[in-house]
Order: sequence, then structure tokens, then C-alpha cells
Amino acid sequence: MLTITLTRLQTTTKSTARIRFKPIWEAALHHQGADLYPCLGRPYSSFRGQTSLPFSKWFPRFVSTRLMSHGTAKATSGRYRKGLFLVTGAATVAGILAAGVSHFQRAEMASRIIMQTETDEGDILERCKSFMSAPVTDVEVLQQRKDQMTTRMEMLILETQAAFCKALAQVDGGTFKVDRWQRKEGGGGISCVLQDSKVFEKAGVNVSVVMGNLPEEAAKQMRSRGKVLKAKDGKLPFCAMGVSSVIHPKNPHIPTVHFNYRYFEIEEADGTKQWWFGGGTDLTPTYLDQEDAVHFHATLKKACDEHHPQYYPDFKKWCDRYFYINHRNERRGIGGIFFDDLDSPSQEEAFAFVKSCARSVVPCYLPIVCKHVDDSFSPEQKAWQQLRRGRYVEFNLVYDRGTKFGLATPGSRIESILMSLPLTARWEYMHEPPKGTKEAEMMEVLRDPKEWV
Amino acid sequence: MLTITLTRLQTTTKSTARIRFKPIWEAALHHQGADLYPCLGRPYSSFRGQTSLPFSKWFPRFVSTRLMSHGTAKATSGRYRKGLFLVTGAATVAGILAAGVSHFQRAEMASRIIMQTETDEGDILERCKSFMSAPVTDVEVLQQRKDQMTTRMEMLILETQAAFCKALAQVDGGTFKVDRWQRKEGGGGISCVLQDSKVFEKAGVNVSVVMGNLPEEAAKQMRSRGKVLKAKDGKLPFCAMGVSSVIHPKNPHIPTVHFNYRYFEIEEADGTKQWWFGGGTDLTPTYLDQEDAVHFHATLKKACDEHHPQYYPDFKKWCDRYFYINHRNERRGIGGIFFDDLDSPSQEEAFAFVKSCARSVVPCYLPIVCKHVDDSFSPEQKAWQQLRRGRYVEFNLVYDRGTKFGLATPGSRIESILMSLPLTARWEYMHEPPKGTKEAEMMEVLRDPKEWV
Repeated sequence: MLTITLTRLQTTTKSTARIRFKPIWEAALHHQGADLYPCLGRPYSSFRGQTSLPFSKWFPRFVSTRLMSHGTAKATSGRYRKGLFLVTGAATVAGILAAGVSHFQRAEMASRIIMQTETDEGDILERCKSFMSAPVTDVEVLQQRKDQMTTRMEMLILETQAAFCKALAQVDGGTFKVDRWQRKEGGGGISCVLQDSKVFEKAGVNVSVVMGNLPEEAAKQMRSRGKVLKAKDGKLPFCAMGVSSVIHPKNPHIPTVHFNYRYFEIEEADGTKQWWFGGGTDLTPTYLDQEDAVHFHATLKKACDEHHPQYYPDFKKWCDRYFYINHRNERRGIGGIFFDDLDSPSQEEAFAFVKSCARSVVPCYLPIVCKHVDDSFSPEQKAWQQLRRGRYVEFNLVYDRGTKFGLATPGSRIESILMSLPLTARWEYMHEPPKGTKEAEMMEVLRDPKEWV
Repeated sequence: MLTITLTRLQTTTKSTARIRFKPIWEAALHHQGADLYPCLGRPYSSFRGQTSLPFSKWFPRFVSTRLMSHGTAKATSGRYRKGLFLVTGAATVAGILAAGVSHFQRAEMASRIIMQTETDEGDILERCKSFMSAPVTDVEVLQQRKDQMTTRMEMLILETQAAFCKALAQVDGGTFKVDRWQRKEGGGGISCVLQDSKVFEKAGVNVSVVMGNLPEEAAKQMRSRGKVLKAKDGKLPFCAMGVSSVIHPKNPHIPTVHFNYRYFEIEEADGTKQWWFGGGTDLTPTYLDQEDAVHFHATLKKACDEHHPQYYPDFKKWCDRYFYINHRNERRGIGGIFFDDLDSPSQEEAFAFVKSCARSVVPCYLPIVCKHVDDSFSPEQKAWQQLRRGRYVEFNLVYDRGTKFGLATPGSRIESILMSLPLTARWEYMHEPPKGTKEAEMMEVLRDPKEWV
């Protein structure tokens, strides 16, 4: 069996270049060829009748090869300390990737590397070429402020958007509609939507970078979360940015996925900055597929474990708590991870964690899409999906903090906020699936969340 | 032209019998025969190819024959004073109804009478026979407390539910599913639902009668609305009841209707009772039909004008304000009336007004259903209906106070609360109907409400 040597390095405040990687989607398509995700790069019609991708053979394996140590990490003021691992031996790895191993083995290794490596963030102009649109912030400004977290995060969210959109477009065969929008109070965003297409009913991937003075309502919310903010003349300059996405496929055997990674910065009266990260990725299947659930959670656990062994268990629980439809006593889906107010152990380390999470989105989801893209389904299964879509709408409109905050904030771009709603949904009075059915099996898991890994 | 003599009577604290009327639906079907609403009492299939019901010939007429005076009404402590009119000459009217006039003329007169008459509330046991289910409160208790407002209101809401359900079932040909439910903290309800039927996608008519001690959260909300409540040992015994309904038809040319009439009573520490009524009826068309809009509002105005000339203009404005989807800058529909905290000029007069409103529901809506039941429609028109359904869901889940309160109240019957959601809905990213289309015409009215009468 092939192995990759992992070495624990000291945490540095600046990322260290070992292997230069393009965004994961490009890595998948161009470096490894289309066989990393066999369904990418081929028109949708060519998948009819193809057997599903046996990702279970390779994804769970990297969990067992994980190396982790955090005993020697620096003590910090925050809740979490981390061990940071970097892949060494770029030439060796590249050689392995090019060698005559199966494409599943290659996919496994590529995933490991992409997820475990602190990459050189590289030349800004060069990286911008792969984005769905020019950055929200002027490229010259980004270049001047290359080392600032706002720049590094903006580049990460744009990279994540592009990687995910391109991977989805490849599976679907359709083209994302790209809207650039500006916010008159400062900043703007890029909304990418693929609607009523071949594989996807609605796929929205949104980036926003906004700044200005924190509205009083928002400042109140921050204070209620325990943040002491010292305003100057009543003003709190802030900068908030993030990438968020909800993908609703047509086939009821392909689950809906949601992710969101965000960064917040507030400048206080004395010029000091408060900052934090938040985010998460979670899956909402219509029908339970154990293998998918294990793959999804294992991939997330992998991304988390590189940074702290408590991240996955804590953020998995947080996710189960957050995506809870109280009035139904059920979760929206089978969870994943969710975190907020992450401001430790250091900005650098928190960013590295968020980067790992963001880069795990494609490996989390694409294999599941590929596996089910040709599954046949009945009208009854489609109707069950539509009912579950209704619950998705209930969660998003009644409970989701981001949606509620967005709808209540003047000047928000409503179409980007409500992009998360499915194209179609259904509500039936007193619907309860009969015991022993696949629908009832799904409900049991939604009522009583499981440990998947 | 036939005329009916109207005489203004002194307001009395007890309703005066002049003509005994069964619920309006029964009046429509049995007293006047099926030709009051020609589409009632015939199976749905028999309407195919029938020309629409020309109700415009008769409904607007009764607006012009209305007599109103409120100069001599008693001055009261409340905001409104009213003039109460009763039809005189029961025999004369009955004779007219039986005479050889056209069925449109008869319908006009019947509507006038039903809406303008304080009826004898009659024998409780006898009235219960026409209900969808036995009352929530024990019939013996109702009989013992015959004159209490809680009893009279419970009878009114059950009567309204039965009249409306039966009228809808007649048009549709389907049968309502009737669920009786109990609330462990006290009281219960009757939910009637017709789902995925011939004419109606989802028709829900719900009655609830609940009592107990007011939860602290609810008491807070009352206080925030200016109600000073003196609790005894921290307890505020309350009784709340109401009838509420949302009807989503399949045909996009038949509008959605919503109504809700409710009564609230709280007992304070010294034994005094605070009470108030609330309610409203409003219409949400997919396509604007001027004639429908005028008919709907004129019928409501008629019901209001019998009690106070300011009711309709004030409650019409309140309705436009209430059913506002702030994040879309549009109303949910073309409005109607909405009021809350109505506790003047007297309990008797407020109840008489609510009774007029409740009894106007069938005449408001059924002629519109009958008119459009056979309208043909395209898949594009159906899709536009689905998008508008999506906005309905947005309003109900994000803004509707009743829904929000219900979802947040432990022990609520969620299925009865969310009965208001359509069977199917749709959300398209950045949908905006082209200028000059019927869809754009609808949007203009939703963005800038009109005066219809």
C-alpha cells in the first residue's frame, strides 16, 4: 500500500508553501484528469445506465490513515488548540499521482493532499483567473493588502465558489448564471445560480463581501452573544464576508447540501479589531443512504481532525442542535458540522481550519452526486422529496439566523438570501409515512440523530 | 325594481329575532334552492363548459341600495359607534323570495337579508346538528351558559365553519376530512381539510377553543399591546377561540381566500374580564380580475357599513398594512379587512359586527369560485400561481403573527397551524414578469394597493 509521510510542523503566522495547488475542482479535473470524479467532464446523458461510483472503497480508508497529535501545540487563550500537519515531499506525491495506480487510489490521495496541505496562497491575479467573476474588492486593493485576513478570506471564498460551481456544472452539463451585485452601503457580491437544469433543481452558490458601520440591531445581537464592543461616536466599522450555498437536486436519491463559511471583523474605538469565523456543511437527504452519511461525516471529520480532535465531535453536536425544526421535533437533515464565533487559538490557525472545511466541500458532496445521478425513482419518491423540501423551507424561513437577519436588514439582496429555497415544495396535511418504509426510516434519523463515524 | 324597507333600531344588548335563518350555506342551498349559487348542489363535472356566473349583475347593486345612518347612535367610550339596521316584514320578504323574480334578483335579496339581519341565535341543540362535528365545549355546558359570549361565539365559529365547508364541498364534489383534537392544557378544536381534490388543492377550515392560564410570553405580548393585566398569584385565566381558514384552489383563475374571526377573554385578579374580538377576510388572486376584486370588497364593505361607516375604510387600510411582505415590498394579495383588539362600542355590538363579517365569507368568495371554476389555464399560468404560492408561504412563515405565535407555543397543534400552507409552491431565482403582461399587472396592484369600492 502507498503511504504519504506526514510531519507535524510548528504553527506559523504565515502559510508555508510546500506544494502549489489549484482549487480542488481544477485539481480534480486538470491535474488528475476527469477520473478523480468519474462523472465530471462528461455530458449528463453519458451517465445513463452507469453503475454508481464506489467511493466507499476509498473515502473511509483515509480516516484510518489519519495521524493526529495536539499534545505539543501551543497553549492559547481560546478553547481549542491544534496540531497542524503538512504533506512533505511534493515531488514524491506528484510522482505517485502520475503513477499507474487505480483512479480511486489516486482520488484518495488527492483528497488527502488537498485537505491536509497548507498551500501557498500564491499570486492574486493568477488565482483570480479561475473565479466565476472578478473579486468583489478591487484586485489592486487585494494585491496591496495581500497579507490581510480580509484579502485572504475573500480569495478563499471566491476559490470555494468557483471550485464548487465548476464541479456541479460538470456533472449537470448546464451553465451557472452569474450575477455581480453591489451594495450601496459598501461592498457587494457574486451570486451563481443553476436553475431547473438536468441534475439540479436549484443550485445557488453565493459570495458576499460587505462593509460599513454596524447597524444598531446587529450590534445588539453581537452584544447579546457576549461581545463587548466599544463604538467610536456610536459607529462600529465592520467587514463581513462569506460563501454560502444550497444545492437542491432533482433526483430524490441525491441529497440537498448546504454550506457556509464566513469571516467577521469589527473595528473598535481604539482601533483594535475583533474578528471571528463561522460556518459549516450539512446534508439533507430525502432517503437515508448509510454509505453516503458515513462518507459525508468522515470527510468532515477528516478536515476537522487536522486542526483539533474536539472540533468534529463539538461541531457535529452544534450542527444537530442548530438545524432543528422545533415545531416538528425533527432535524432538517443528517447534519454535518456547524460553528460560530471561532476566534481561537489564533487567527492563522482558525483560518487554516476554515480553509480545510471549505476545501472539503467538493470531496464531501460530489461523490454522492456521482453515485446517485442515474438512480431511477418513482413519482411517490419524488412526492416525498417535495414534502421534505417543504420542511427545508420551514427551517429556513422560521429558524435560520442568517435568513432572518438578512430579511430584516434593509438593503439586503433578497434574491441571494432566498436562493436557498427549493424550486418546488409541498405541504400535506397530517402526512406521516407508514412504519417500516424507507420514508419512516428517514424520519427516525431526523428525530434521533446518529453518530456516523 | 323591488325594494326592502329598512328601519334603524335601537341597539339592544340581546339580539332580536325577526326572521329565523339557518346558516348562510343552508339558506343558500335549502331555503332559496341551489340557484342562489348556481354552481352549488351540482357535481363538479356538470360545470365543464358552463358559462361563468354573472354575479356582477347583482352584487354591486346592493351597495347602491344601502341605507346608512349613524348620527343618532349612542356615544360610547370606544372608537366606533354604530347604526344597526334590521330587516322588517319577514312575511313580505319571504313572499318576494318565493315570487317569480330571476334567481339573480333573489340571490341579491337573500344576501341583503342574511347580511343585514340580527338573527335569533336559537336552540343550541338544534343548531349543533348542522356543524361539522360536536362543539368543542360540552353541549350541556353550552346550554347552561347560553347567554355568555363564550358560548355565543363558539356557536358562531362552528356555524361559520360548517357553512363554509359545506359550500366548498358542494362546489368541489369532495368530502372534508374532519379531525377533532384536544389540548391537554384545556380545550381543543375541529380541523376540516379537503386536500388535492377536484377544485381545491388545499382547503382548511379550523375551529379552536382553548383555555387555561395565559403563558408569560403571551401575557408579555398583551402588555406590549397596551393591555394592563392584573394577575392573581401570577395567573391569568384566559379563553381564546376562533375560526380560521385558507383555501388554495387548483385553478389559477380562482383566488386564494383567507379569513379568521376570533374572541379573547382574560380574567383579572378582581374577577373582571377583559375581552376583545379580532379578525378579517382577505383575497389573494394569482391574476387580477377587477370584477372579483370589486365584488369581494363591496361585500365586505356592506358587512362593515351596517355597523360603522369607518369600519371598512379603517380595516381595509389595516389589512393592506398587515399582509405586507416587507422583504419583497409587496402585499400578499388584494386585501380585504383586518382588525384586532376590538372592544367597543359594547360587547354586543362588537359581536354583531363580527357575526356580520363571518356571515359574509360565503357571499364574498363562493360567487368568485363559481365564476372561474371552468376557466381554462395554461402551464405558464399554473407556474405563476405556484410562484405566488411561494410568496404566500413567505408571508405566513416570516410575518404572520398567528402562525409565529402558534409555532412558538408549546402544545400547539402544528398541523392545524400549517394547514394554511399550500399543497405546492415554487421559488424561482430573480423572477420578474415582463412589463405589459397579466402577471405584471398583478404585481402593480400588490405593490400599490387600490381602493376597490
